Amino acid sequence: MVKKKAAVLGATGMMGQKFVQLLTTHPWFEVAAVAASDRNVGKSYDEATSAGSGKRFHEEHRLEVVEARPQAVGDPDIVFSALPAEVASPIEEEFANAGFPVFSNASSHRMDEYVPLLNPEVNSEHAALVDQQKRRMKRDGFIVANPNCTTAILTLSLKPLDQAFGLEKVIVSSMQSISGAGYPGVASIDILENVIPFIRSEEEKVERETNKILGTATSPATITVSASCHRVPTIHGHIEAVFAKTLSSTSPEEAAERMARFQSVPQQLKLPSAPVYPLVVRREEDRPQTRLDVDEGGGMTVSVGRIRKDPAMKGVKYIALGHNLVRGGAGCSILNAELLLAQKYIQ
Amino acid sequence: MVKKKAAVLGATGMMGQKFVQLLTTHPWFEVAAVAASDRNVGKSYDEATSAGSGKRFHEEHRLEVVEARPQAVGDPDIVFSALPAEVASPIEEEFANAGFPVFSNASSHRMDEYVPLLNPEVNSEHAALVDQQKRRMKRDGFIVANPNCTTAILTLSLKPLDQAFGLEKVIVSSMQSISGAGYPGVASIDILENVIPFIRSEEEKVERETNKILGTATSPATITVSASCHRVPTIHGHIEAVFAKTLSSTSPEEAAERMARFQSVPQQLKLPSAPVYPLVVRREEDRPQTRLDVDEGGGMTVSVGRIRKDPAMKGVKYIALGHNLVRGGAGCSILNAELLLAQKYIQ
Amino acid sequence: MVKKKAAVLGATGMMGQKFVQLLTTHPWFEVAAVAASDRNVGKSYDEATSAGSGKRFHEEHRLEVVEARPQAVGDPDIVFSALPAEVASPIEEEFANAGFPVFSNASSHRMDEYVPLLNPEVNSEHAALVDQQKRRMKRDGFIVANPNCTTAILTLSLKPLDQAFGLEKVIVSSMQSISGAGYPGVASIDILENVIPFIRSEEEKVERETNKILGTATSPATITVSASCHRVPTIHGHIEAVFAKTLSSTSPEEAAERMARFQSVPQQLKLPSAPVYPLVVRREEDRPQTRLDVDEGGGMTVSVGRIRKDPAMKGVKYIALGHNLVRGGAGCSILNAELLLAQKYIQ
Amino acid sequence: MVKKKAAVLGATGMMGQKFVQLLTTHPWFEVAAVAASDRNVGKSYDEATSAGSGKRFHEEHRLEVVEARPQAVGDPDIVFSALPAEVASPIEEEFANAGFPVFSNASSHRMDEYVPLLNPEVNSEHAALVDQQKRRMKRDGFIVANPNCTTAILTLSLKPLDQAFGLEKVIVSSMQSISGAGYPGVASIDILENVIPFIRSEEEKVERETNKILGTATSPATITVSASCHRVPTIHGHIEAVFAKTLSSTSPEEAAERMARFQSVPQQLKLPSAPVYPLVVRREEDRPQTRLDVDEGGGMTVSVGRIRKDPAMKGVKYIALGHNLVRGGAGCSILNAELLLAQKYIQ
Repeated sequence: MVKKKAAVLGATGMMGQKFVQLLTTHPWFEVAAVAASDRNVGKSYDEATSAGSGKRFHEEHRLEVVEARPQAVGDPDIVFSALPAEVASPIEEEFANAGFPVFSNASSHRMDEYVPLLNPEVNSEHAALVDQQKRRMKRDGFIVANPNCTTAILTLSLKPLDQAFGLEKVIVSSMQSISGAGYPGVASIDILENVIPFIRSEEEKVERETNKILGTATSPATITVSASCHRVPTIHGHIEAVFAKTLSSTSPEEAAERMARFQSVPQQLKLPSAPVYPLVVRREEDRPQTRLDVDEGGGMTVSVGRIRKDPAMKGVKYIALGHNLVRGGAGCSILNAELLLAQKYIQ
Repeated sequence: MVKKKAAVLGATGMMGQKFVQLLTTHPWFEVAAVAASDRNVGKSYDEATSAGSGKRFHEEHRLEVVEARPQAVGDPDIVFSALPAEVASPIEEEFANAGFPVFSNASSHRMDEYVPLLNPEVNSEHAALVDQQKRRMKRDGFIVANPNCTTAILTLSLKPLDQAFGLEKVIVSSMQSISGAGYPGVASIDILENVIPFIRSEEEKVERETNKILGTATSPATITVSASCHRVPTIHGHIEAVFAKTLSSTSPEEAAERMARFQSVPQQLKLPSAPVYPLVVRREEDRPQTRLDVDEGGGMTVSVGRIRKDPAMKGVKYIALGHNLVRGGAGCSILNAELLLAQKYIQ
Repeated sequence: MVKKKAAVLGATGMMGQKFVQLLTTHPWFEVAAVAASDRNVGKSYDEATSAGSGKRFHEEHRLEVVEARPQAVGDPDIVFSALPAEVASPIEEEFANAGFPVFSNASSHRMDEYVPLLNPEVNSEHAALVDQQKRRMKRDGFIVANPNCTTAILTLSLKPLDQAFGLEKVIVSSMQSISGAGYPGVASIDILENVIPFIRSEEEKVERETNKILGTATSPATITVSASCHRVPTIHGHIEAVFAKTLSSTSPEEAAERMARFQSVPQQLKLPSAPVYPLVVRREEDRPQTRLDVDEGGGMTVSVGRIRKDPAMKGVKYIALGHNLVRGGAGCSILNAELLLAQKYIQ
Repeated sequence: MVKKKAAVLGATGMMGQKFVQLLTTHPWFEVAAVAASDRNVGKSYDEATSAGSGKRFHEEHRLEVVEARPQAVGDPDIVFSALPAEVASPIEEEFANAGFPVFSNASSHRMDEYVPLLNPEVNSEHAALVDQQKRRMKRDGFIVANPNCTTAILTLSLKPLDQAFGLEKVIVSSMQSISGAGYPGVASIDILENVIPFIRSEEEKVERETNKILGTATSPATITVSASCHRVPTIHGHIEAVFAKTLSSTSPEEAAERMARFQSVPQQLKLPSAPVYPLVVRREEDRPQTRLDVDEGGGMTVSVGRIRKDPAMKGVKYIALGHNLVRGGAGCSILNAELLLAQKYIQ
């Protein structure tokens, strides 16, 4: 199979580099263009990412950084966007209007009516929205969004519970790593030996996106979601304490079994980035732990543990952990592209 | 005023040293005896605490470490116990039976029917239990317990809400510092750049003790409490994400006002360890933070912030932070002793 | 005594806030003006320092931030400069030319021939350079610099050895905390669980400044100094592994005694910021340690330990620790001002 | 090729697990027995290593833990020892006397006259000592030691300099990670946000072992080595600031070239654990860094950088980084076994 050519927008940031790193060894896609902001245009990708954390994420790469404009990226089959939210919106529209399928990690279009907000094991059927989007926007290209990092991890863990028991309310407290803030992100003196109980707009995103994802393509779910988001001094991996009230009664054992057995469309389609089981249920009393389990399934698996009765919600409480840059970002976006390719939304 | 003589049991551990440190400058009490386990008996207190974190907590001190037996500690007016839970029970009973007022940080007797579990601003009226305890146990001494660290911080923040609106349900996720595990406590390789979502027995303690404290002296409250407890790489200070459902409706503004204005018996009695306001409400969007705010009020104040509407519980959610070794331990125990002295339970 | 009025330039940065914090409780000085860059001019000092680490360093302060120009700061008796190196030079000259005594933490003028580079216990006699500076520059004001943080700590520890035995060569490896990089400074993802063995220009400063300080006012010393500087994940305090070759032979015991007994002009003058003994020699096998000892003497004392024979240099090796923002910055600068006031260089 | 059977003594500790982990995928060796102290005997290896950091280091393993006695381990071809120093000596002797080739990471026998202290790229010719050892001890087995972790990294970086220019003096300051202290090792409260400038016996080991390794098999070198060893809050990887005085003059460029081109017997023999180039010279101004570069070459490569003139030693100074558990421990020991097998010291 000839690999599909991918352009990565915002390729020099922390998430952009994660896209490039994951695509470098991808069986279906290859990086054909890296685009970034003006100050990096014309540099080699290596040079543009040589500072700071950059060095952690990329393979040797001689591509020249180009402008994030349709005319500048050659003729890719797929466009991945790791653009910062504040500039993503018009640029992604421009690419979609120019006919490209755009898979975006930015928050800009996530809540747009005809943009599927896709976490493939959770709501692959939302992919159908791209046809409506194309018609309505009168264009051949489209935008597909992946969820906010915390939401991606949360909704994957909730899906089997929602399927089996129905969800009524969810309370979640997150302990999020610093790489979620990009580069340079959080100043070291602000987070070393500290917890910062605030991440701008994060709680709103979790509460809003969870319902779009767990709803149907055209109608959001009506689960009451309440989040409290906290930054802790870890590098990669967001860990979440989840309290879930289900419509029909469940036990920790039943919940664990549903989670452990959970498989979905990406598994049936054997998509290359899809773990055989997207959820791993840990039976140890003190797992999952951020540093130990963050790379499970190459970062695409969400590890769940400590599933126990929750007296307050009359449901279950548990711990979920996922890699914020992989399942919670670039990895999820790439899995979205695999899904749409397998389902012929992309030729 | 002649200072009351205090003996500290378990004086060489992390919490024991915090007792000694706080008592060193106390206006009412002075350390007359330091007792510890056999391997430290006969050493100077300085020598016995020279290893590891010990060095952080004590003033120069020439007292000789003695056995934790009534015959060995001279004739103190008050006994503070920082004994480890696994040995505390019989030793504290022995001291109480020998006529001493024992203020214990151990969990052993917290749930005993006639032992007041005291967080002075929250339930000072429970102190009356000591009279029943003395009668029932046929002794002149008694035991007063202070709550588990996480519970002490939580219940202080909940009290004004319970007073004003009534509490029905509470969900709390804690992010607890390593000093809560004592010394040597958590291995560095287990917690550096990590979150451990498990602290043995902690969730049970929070759920159980909260109701004893927020109930009457003879009848626990019936608030449904559900906790998820996590260890994070901070040194001192437990931060808690609290979701509270109240019986009558409240708003974040009302809740904040009740908390900010809250004062109680220790404030009326002007007890020396009592902050003028035991709760400080932070108005910044990202406070309280563990490292920045842990020492508020000498560690006796609980800082509260981010009070906001909670859609899931139809109540409020907020962040609370307190010093686990001071409000959550030695400081609370010393405030208990001040209360019982001011109220003439101790002569 | 009427307090001298002080203006602080660059008052909103991390070092500027340390100046303000130390001056707030100073017996001789009081903050009369806070000046900063344009974007903060007109804000209250509180507001201008409300972001990030700012919140850690200042007392409540209603002063309005003004421009860093002589016309804007009122009529202070003394000017302290915490300006960033890249803008400090012309502004400090402007203030000196306008007649103000300027005490600068910036590196810009440290190596100027007529600017004393003062670490008061080490080379107070260099203060006399200000008279030459005034004559030569035809102005009533002057500039006094304090050393680079690493150098201040190093030279204080070296001085008694140089006095007693003469220094020939010094090798030093530093482990420097993140607050030395200012705010926002080092990105958390660059330093959490990491060592960065590079700090721009630091090694050159240490090698150069040490000789100016340990020389006479007019002629630098000729000690061969070689430094290797490293950033480690600590918050405050630079720890240094020093290997010193002396001209006449010494033993660890002699070296320790000279260091422990060391006192100098600031001690004789009983300057308010001068510790009774500027060096503390720790006898424990594992001290000084950054977190435990950084605040010794309010941050003005350098703690020394592990003084032992150095076979390679045929001298001694030891560990030195000091507070990079106090002895290594604002505290040293304030002590300089105290010295020049006591010695009537300032009226 | 039939794999050689290996027994690992002290298999449940941090270093023992690193041996097991590295052997699990080894092309020449396989783990046939895991031995540990009495309290773990009879458990499955999985169970015995389930606590704490154990979980990080091993693959699923059903072997039963046996006693560390020759009679208990079956009939292995090779014995690896990760026993703690305090018990290693007699047990390793017992195994050698029973005819086994013992590759030991313990410090007990490193300085024994007939025990080769092997860092294979540095002094493979010392392997010949095993014949003398066998004759002298009248046994068929023998003991081969690998160096202390800090020494292994140091001597590998020094070897090409010693070959080309001759070494006269070496000063080294190490910044060592916590995994070097084993499990549970350093208490988190002792090292979080701290530097501990002391590691028991470490400096003596570095000074002593370096000369044995860089000497001939029968006569140690006479390089004056002076070390200062410090613990920092990193997980894996020791970084060292090295100052080296050479007999003939060198430049940073020449030194870098010698290091970058350096290859030795393990490379000629193409031993499976030997990197093609055991030293990597980084050209960036701020590399190597502990977290970014520790896993270079699977942990067997030492990364070197910042090679620059050292005025004090009239030589060069540089930074070296290696993985303390791999090149500095289990990996080096396994490479020793590969060398002795390739050279027919083991049949």
